[in-house]
Amino acid sequence: MPIAEILTIGDELLSGETVDTNASWLDARLADWGWTVARHVTVADDVPTIATAFREAAARAELVISSGGLGPTQDDLTLQALGVALGAPLVLHEATLETIRARFAKLGREMTPNNVRQAMVPSVGEVLPNAVGTAPAFTATLGSCAIYLVPGVPREMRWLAEQTIAPRVRRAAPAIFRATLKVIGLGESKLEHEIRAVIAACPGARIGFRTLGAENHVKVAAPDAAALAEAVAAVRGVLGDKVYGAGEDTIESVVIARLAARGQTIATAESCTGGLVAKRLTDVAGASAVVLGGVVAYANALKTSLCDVPADVLAAHGAVSEAVASALASGVRARTGASWGVATTGVAGPGGGSPEKPVGLVWVAVAGEGGVEARELRLPGDREQIRQSSATVALELLRERLTTTG
Amino acid sequence: MPIAEILTIGDELLSGETVDTNASWLDARLADWGWTVARHVTVADDVPTIATAFREAAARAELVISSGGLGPTQDDLTLQALGVALGAPLVLHEATLETIRARFAKLGREMTPNNVRQAMVPSVGEVLPNAVGTAPAFTATLGSCAIYLVPGVPREMRWLAEQTIAPRVRRAAPAIFRATLKVIGLGESKLEHEIRAVIAACPGARIGFRTLGAENHVKVAAPDAAALAEAVAAVRGVLGDKVYGAGEDTIESVVIARLAARGQTIATAESCTGGLVAKRLTDVAGASAVVLGGVVAYANALKTSLCDVPADVLAAHGAVSEAVASALASGVRARTGASWGVATTGVAGPGGGSPEKPVGLVWVAVAGEGGVEARELRLPGDREQIRQSSATVALELLRERLTTTG
Repeated sequence: MPIAEILTIGDELLSGETVDTNASWLDARLADWGWTVARHVTVADDVPTIATAFREAAARAELVISSGGLGPTQDDLTLQALGVALGAPLVLHEATLETIRARFAKLGREMTPNNVRQAMVPSVGEVLPNAVGTAPAFTATLGSCAIYLVPGVPREMRWLAEQTIAPRVRRAAPAIFRATLKVIGLGESKLEHEIRAVIAACPGARIGFRTLGAENHVKVAAPDAAALAEAVAAVRGVLGDKVYGAGEDTIESVVIARLAARGQTIATAESCTGGLVAKRLTDVAGASAVVLGGVVAYANALKTSLCDVPADVLAAHGAVSEAVASALASGVRARTGASWGVATTGVAGPGGGSPEKPVGLVWVAVAGEGGVEARELRLPGDREQIRQSSATVALELLRERLTTTG
Repeated sequence: MPIAEILTIGDELLSGETVDTNASWLDARLADWGWTVARHVTVADDVPTIATAFREAAARAELVISSGGLGPTQDDLTLQALGVALGAPLVLHEATLETIRARFAKLGREMTPNNVRQAMVPSVGEVLPNAVGTAPAFTATLGSCAIYLVPGVPREMRWLAEQTIAPRVRRAAPAIFRATLKVIGLGESKLEHEIRAVIAACPGARIGFRTLGAENHVKVAAPDAAALAEAVAAVRGVLGDKVYGAGEDTIESVVIARLAARGQTIATAESCTGGLVAKRLTDVAGASAVVLGGVVAYANALKTSLCDVPADVLAAHGAVSEAVASALASGVRARTGASWGVATTGVAGPGGGSPEKPVGLVWVAVAGEGGVEARELRLPGDREQIRQSSATVALELLRERLTTTG
């Protein structure tokens, strides 16, 4: 596949303030469009540095997409730097200025003088209109490389990439076929050991492994669709029902889809995850057909008042216990009339741990028609990782119930 | 300040599967340690490419930290590539192998043959023990540049950076003094226009602007502490009470701190945000002193059964309305006995919009001793952005109440 590079520009990307999510989003799109992204480079808002980065990337790749530095402020220097790389002066692009004026007028907002900067573009190249913001995109050819400049604001970057860049750069279908199988709660080394043996018998297939919190992803690549199908089948043969999904699936999207197919509903009762299970379930567009909602029972009083956990159970076992996890799941199910109740309770840290109940100890539970089932977890990581893994495993426990109950 | 670069390594960082959060985390640490990060580079798991990237970075910077490619699998190639860059063969490091063996024994897990790979290191350089994982870190000098290799797993990377790398690379205090002031709900151009005027009178001070969802951040830099204080005061003079916090503050950490100082509590009633407000509040370590919990009232039935929103109010106004937002906030406050109730209801999309109630229309409300107050929002962006901005503005509305009520 032809080689692309991504150049992201901005002091805030090098100071720890901002995580660069644009590069990874563009990676996925470029793979779909038939390109291999070979490199990301991030540089500061500095004209000579950006200009050099453009020249270096253009010497290595056939396509460079840069994001950032097209805004109205004085630290937005990408058009100027591209002009330097091209050896082309900046000129006022009247049509762009008019578009920016019209946009401000329509929003009833005052156009400030610095917005004029966004209409100053290199004399060589082409302005690409941006229907979702004031910053126009721009394209030019440097040597034999096509360069596209898009704003750093993710919404505008995404719109321009899909609406404007994709039609110009999309290639034929990729020559490598890929799949990702996802499981929860298997160790990486053990997984690899078992799977390599079966993959060795699949000609041309390659595998990779990735651990993301409580999840393990097995990546399979093969030279054609038939070889990929064979390799995927071999991996599935090892993993069986442990595979919760593939590709873009998430545990929450899989659970939502299964519940929707059954016409069933879900409610959550969360202590240590504090709303994260419900938030992840409702990340899925269309979740409202399945997710009734639930309770964040962070304080013990709410476990009793909103989820009917008996006060004596709380007193006898403590909040972080199998009994309370089970009572939360059953309680929220009964209160809401949902088909399934899912609950979490644990010690997410950094404080609150004890020798008996250390940071990372979490109980998750699932209540349904067939009764309630709980699972004890000992999770590594920091507060955020423990909370994310708790939510992931709680949803996996429900998925397993949905699998075994047909 | 001396120049550092960050090199992140892994196919998954270029395929759209994984957002590179390590680089930005290292940026912030390196700034604290007196370094300027001038560049990030991300390359694939390929020995010649990684080796070239090491050589190029070492020619530009005094310090290079690379993350990724130290695991046990066959696509972990960073040590091999560093060996190529150094012109040094790989040798078995017995002490590391012993540490890995001991680690597996302690966890009661089987050590598979591929784990031996992690003990093969360049003959020139030094192994840096990793107390939180099997992958050791490594350091060597290439030309006049110090190179540090850490694993890509964030928890291990962070531990090694703080425990092992920091003591070796930390410099004197930085020569630039920086501050960030944070506000919610001001437009970037307007903000800049008003603030540039006052900053112009502050000698040596520079400002930058950053929009993050519903938030605007004003970054101030100055050559010394007194100049920074003066510039910060000037910006605060323009923004007044709009400034919710500075530096590492988040709107949720500020709200938690203010409530804790008053001995007050909070409960949430969320429709469109689906648990996100509660999740963000409980992201703050120690939130349990303040956050009682709340209700995710995604389905209308739960708005009534768990938050006492009258069915006739729902029928008359629809779920996305001032009346329902207010009833949710008041209802959850009454049910839980919290000092404050915070509520959201809106159309997060992508479906569910209508001409009258389009995607992005959100009502947030805050109920307290002084009554209930609601605010209508028209939010841009996709589902995730609309939900995040809704949560942000809901918490800002509470902060404003806490500010005006002393």
